[in-house]
Amino acid sequence: MIKQRLDDYRAPIEKVLQNCLQEEGVPEELLESMNYSLQAGGKRIRPVLCLVWAELLGQKKENVLHFCSSLELIHTYSLIHDDLPAMDNDDLRRGKASNHIRFGEALAILAGDGLLTRAFSMMLQSNLAPEAVLQAAGQISRAAGPAGMVGGQVLDMTLSGNKKMELEKLKEMHSRKTGAMIKSSCLAGAILARGGQEDQLRAEEYGAALGLAFQVADDILDITGDEARLGKPVGSDQARDKLTYPALLGLDESRRLGLEMVARAKQAIETYSGIQADFLRDLAGYIMDRVE
Amino acid sequence: MIKQRLDDYRAPIEKVLQNCLQEEGVPEELLESMNYSLQAGGKRIRPVLCLVWAELLGQKKENVLHFCSSLELIHTYSLIHDDLPAMDNDDLRRGKASNHIRFGEALAILAGDGLLTRAFSMMLQSNLAPEAVLQAAGQISRAAGPAGMVGGQVLDMTLSGNKKMELEKLKEMHSRKTGAMIKSSCLAGAILARGGQEDQLRAEEYGAALGLAFQVADDILDITGDEARLGKPVGSDQARDKLTYPALLGLDESRRLGLEMVARAKQAIETYSGIQADFLRDLAGYIMDRVE
Repeated sequence: MIKQRLDDYRAPIEKVLQNCLQEEGVPEELLESMNYSLQAGGKRIRPVLCLVWAELLGQKKENVLHFCSSLELIHTYSLIHDDLPAMDNDDLRRGKASNHIRFGEALAILAGDGLLTRAFSMMLQSNLAPEAVLQAAGQISRAAGPAGMVGGQVLDMTLSGNKKMELEKLKEMHSRKTGAMIKSSCLAGAILARGGQEDQLRAEEYGAALGLAFQVADDILDITGDEARLGKPVGSDQARDKLTYPALLGLDESRRLGLEMVARAKQAIETYSGIQADFLRDLAGYIMDRVE
Repeated sequence: MIKQRLDDYRAPIEKVLQNCLQEEGVPEELLESMNYSLQAGGKRIRPVLCLVWAELLGQKKENVLHFCSSLELIHTYSLIHDDLPAMDNDDLRRGKASNHIRFGEALAILAGDGLLTRAFSMMLQSNLAPEAVLQAAGQISRAAGPAGMVGGQVLDMTLSGNKKMELEKLKEMHSRKTGAMIKSSCLAGAILARGGQEDQLRAEEYGAALGLAFQVADDILDITGDEARLGKPVGSDQARDKLTYPALLGLDESRRLGLEMVARAKQAIETYSGIQADFLRDLAGYIMDRVE
């Protein structure tokens, strides 16, 4: 049920993603490398969140579809660069050879650079009130930047294997590495719909709680999940001595934290009703349902 | 004389560059790595061009200074990524250890990612008419993206060592790899000053000719220049079998092409007068004067 609704929201986004890199003058091998990773599947959760928040607050889908879709380009670039030998050195991504295994390191670095830059040109081409586009794209650029996602990856590298790290630092790292972009995807949708301060605050609260719940659930699934569904070997976090919530808190306490975040996400949007609000509630619940 | 005026335009830009990466929440080692390359010197030609074009068309310096300065972050990111072992594998940049030699590959990749993203958050924070900021930042994102600078780097990798490459393909590669951003720096300045179609066209023509002249001059200096001034070994292009204008055309014909581009740049701005126009003319002339 939730999966079907997720697919429905995702369908028009997939359509945009299929063609959005086709610009005049892009070298063929670069286009192939970018598309290889962009078309590798994934939940498209950032574009979906942006779209649903925009619709929830009264914006039309067709007005925000390109902006929302561009968020997946940023996510994809971050995965390509994270997989590089100098970083996480991952050969597999979503069950397929990672970008640098397939195309070589140079093209993988450039495909990441290209996706990140193209994401901004997509955002800035939006046919909406210029102030709203500026504010939303500015928000995304900060969430993706040195104080957000890029900084989070640096923290992740520095902290990896440090078993004594406190929970607060782990949360801080994730709030930057994955949380900032998920939170900002919701916020950008609210901004593009010209939601007020209250709406924007709720979008941030919902997104922040949802982002943490996702991370906790991913960490748990790395231990208890099955390989086919994950698209990568079970236990890979442990194998590389990666610091995770289960490693720090144990499985039970991690589950409790995940459920608490789901509750907090639902609470943030309790004043809203309608199909979008219901979807956002069910999506939050679904995250920890996968884990049971 | 031209050097002094270049310094005068550059001074306020240097000031912005010194502090623009200091955001709350940026991990210290990332900040250090980004600043290491951003503060390594350089002509700051892209910010200067953007600033001078904006002033030429009546915009105030303080209104565009942050936007202009952000262009140097994009240039710096491209140098860090180009120097990586998987790409040009350069140990030296401007006479100093390149970023990955000093900080390791992972942090170098992330410093580049951080600079590129931060550049957009700087652009989008501009205190100017939102439509103008959107148009100018959109222009820059396309020039830096897969059909511009990133694509040019891919072409450079694919074409390197191919002695049979025609002049047109070499020009095409450079027009993307370095030309697009130089052209767009001029154009962005014109847009931020709310220049008309005619002005924008002239900014593009001037920038395109200037960009090619720069490239030709750099190629010539790699053969005839002295090491201390270049900050890298003379003859390094030849050593790596890099395709250059002198390699394809010979030194004399390359000089002729450079001078032709200088003339074309001057012609594009012949209708303008005043100190900014004079500076743009002298700057164009200076490029090939260095080569004599």
